[in-house]
Amino acid sequence: MTLPLDLASLQALDQDDPLRPFKNRFLIPEDVLYLNGNSLGPLTVDAKQRLTDAVSHEWGTELIRGWNTAGWYDMPKRVGDKIGKLIGAESGETLLCDSTSVNLFKAVSAALSLTTGRKKIVSESGNFPTDLYILDGIKSFLKGDYQVDVRPREDIFDAIDEETAVVVLTHVHYVTGDIFPMEEITAKAHKCGALIVWDLSHSVGAVKTTLSKAHADFAVGCGYKHLNGGPGAPAFIYAAKRHHHTMHQPLSGWFSHINPFEFTDKYQPADDAHRLLCGTTPILGATALEAAVDLFLEADGAVRLKKLEQMSRIFEGLIEEKCGSHDLTLVSPADPTARGAHLSYHHKDGYALMQNLIDRGVIGDFRAPSYLRFGLSPLFMGYEDLYNAAEILSEILETGSFKAEKYQVKQAVT
Amino acid sequence: MTLPLDLASLQALDQDDPLRPFKNRFLIPEDVLYLNGNSLGPLTVDAKQRLTDAVSHEWGTELIRGWNTAGWYDMPKRVGDKIGKLIGAESGETLLCDSTSVNLFKAVSAALSLTTGRKKIVSESGNFPTDLYILDGIKSFLKGDYQVDVRPREDIFDAIDEETAVVVLTHVHYVTGDIFPMEEITAKAHKCGALIVWDLSHSVGAVKTTLSKAHADFAVGCGYKHLNGGPGAPAFIYAAKRHHHTMHQPLSGWFSHINPFEFTDKYQPADDAHRLLCGTTPILGATALEAAVDLFLEADGAVRLKKLEQMSRIFEGLIEEKCGSHDLTLVSPADPTARGAHLSYHHKDGYALMQNLIDRGVIGDFRAPSYLRFGLSPLFMGYEDLYNAAEILSEILETGSFKAEKYQVKQAVT
Repeated sequence: MTLPLDLASLQALDQDDPLRPFKNRFLIPEDVLYLNGNSLGPLTVDAKQRLTDAVSHEWGTELIRGWNTAGWYDMPKRVGDKIGKLIGAESGETLLCDSTSVNLFKAVSAALSLTTGRKKIVSESGNFPTDLYILDGIKSFLKGDYQVDVRPREDIFDAIDEETAVVVLTHVHYVTGDIFPMEEITAKAHKCGALIVWDLSHSVGAVKTTLSKAHADFAVGCGYKHLNGGPGAPAFIYAAKRHHHTMHQPLSGWFSHINPFEFTDKYQPADDAHRLLCGTTPILGATALEAAVDLFLEADGAVRLKKLEQMSRIFEGLIEEKCGSHDLTLVSPADPTARGAHLSYHHKDGYALMQNLIDRGVIGDFRAPSYLRFGLSPLFMGYEDLYNAAEILSEILETGSFKAEKYQVKQAVT
Repeated sequence: MTLPLDLASLQALDQDDPLRPFKNRFLIPEDVLYLNGNSLGPLTVDAKQRLTDAVSHEWGTELIRGWNTAGWYDMPKRVGDKIGKLIGAESGETLLCDSTSVNLFKAVSAALSLTTGRKKIVSESGNFPTDLYILDGIKSFLKGDYQVDVRPREDIFDAIDEETAVVVLTHVHYVTGDIFPMEEITAKAHKCGALIVWDLSHSVGAVKTTLSKAHADFAVGCGYKHLNGGPGAPAFIYAAKRHHHTMHQPLSGWFSHINPFEFTDKYQPADDAHRLLCGTTPILGATALEAAVDLFLEADGAVRLKKLEQMSRIFEGLIEEKCGSHDLTLVSPADPTARGAHLSYHHKDGYALMQNLIDRGVIGDFRAPSYLRFGLSPLFMGYEDLYNAAEILSEILETGSFKAEKYQVKQAVT
């Protein structure tokens, strides 16, 4: 099959796209082509409206009564269950709470509570840094009893052995977009008597994720990337039901208690997933995230995944056709079904190139030392957007405009 | 001095109150007398406006660029420093982040990292439950090495001894409002070679708090009570500068790294208070909180504290005068300078009484088993409000309307 890479064909694809109506539900500036939903998803019309209501009518008018009347108390489970539908979880297995990093600490600790006697934690070198840092924190806190075995991706499968307590992996790699085979690795872990914790930060709302089918034990993930929950949105945590009565985690704040509002001195963990909560739910962030997830659930998941694959092929084709002579190297897998919802390219002047692109309204991002990342979001992007982004990148490379001094100076965050 | 308890005198006090203009900066429904700022502070005009701007202009328009252009990246320190001014901390010692419970875990862990060899943690029975639950979690996670010595308030001073690693206390008690003498207890801890962690959830924005002067080691506190940061607002954490280079805490997410955006595998903690951060800052919640704290900083702290003391005396006097014959027992200290910004009363039908009050527009709250709490907030309450609240409580007690069946049924949260 020849890929349609000319403008007319791509416009025709947009015309026929059943997801086209979703684009108007997002508030993206006119002069921006946003290829960074993998880092911070854009604002939706619904989230803006619901936040306005939550501030004025819930906080403003209901005040403390909002815990009951506005449903704040149920948010961890209510929003968690909605996210659960996107990751193949059963109802009651997913909770909205805290940050991804905090949740990873809880999930790994809970897994360790179920694998007493084993001391090895397996993870990937080049994993998203916070995952490795949290493992380092757990290891140090537990005073050297544990070994964190960090291996290159190709060695992970074999590194999982009879001594392994917990395997901690990111399903979709934050730079390359490489997807780990969840079912295969989970099965290997279980065969060895180990448990697994999946970081779904780049999976949820992006790629097919089937926690229950894979018999995954624990998972965590991010609310502000593909889920469009807003800057610093609450994250989520998942635990398979079979672990709910036996798992323990040390961040045992009052919301993890079986009855938080009895205010008793003695700790008794909730008898379900709620024992993974800690403190009070961040209601404003949870409100924006819930609105964004509701929008996601309106879309047909299969149609979304099919469009993502098509976008991924087409964007790769456009870059190859328009920029192929300029030392851009695809670092994402060649097989579109083996990569997540972003494409990464190496370029020695990657930082300057991305600054120039952003200046031209094409917002992707840069990851050290040399990677340009372009996020693909079927709900708010069309095929013509991909064409225009590739065109602008091509112009920048052809004219060498990225060599201007102003694009060389690094800022704190991009 | 005779307390002015008649309506005309209280109206005159309001007329002369230099804090009177602040009342219009809060958006409280006309039909509500809100005596619950100690549980969830009300919405401010500024927070509403800033949230609207942050959603539309920062998230909506700046998108990922907001991390630089909207100052999101600096929020933990920027907002933390503002809160620091209210608790007597130096710049660079206070950070906005996570929930109070998560921060308590970090603060206690950091304190334990500095007291190696000692195994005893001292806290108070009847402390806010999350504090005790978190200590239980730490103890369990560290596999029994630690002893959590929970004592009644009157035994705390003597319980601190040469074996004590860390003392964990709530400065203002969440039920009684009892204030611990911070300087005296901190000095006792230090004399024994122990460190101290103060929970300031009911202190910040309420009572005089002097962390630096007391040489306190660590502290945490809540953003959604007296600070008016909104439901589930981010909390804060404080560490004295002298500990910044030596303390360690296990929630070592990427924002605690010395250079989060270098994305290196190896963990290296920040060389300042930032090593107490964990994951991504909840920007929407932080925005509302910053606006509310800015408002706080506009008010003269000494004037605010003086008004609080006067309100506290007057409310107690009004309740005594109007409801004194109805078996309401003050459980807060008799000395107004020894209690925080709420007054608690025991009544055997406390729950029903509070439901009836809320129905009548007087919003306080109830804490099991029998306590009515009335929060006093000098910035948004006047003396006449106290009169009206006491009048309504008196009516309810006189008529016995709280005995109606509808007030007996408990809801999940009040």
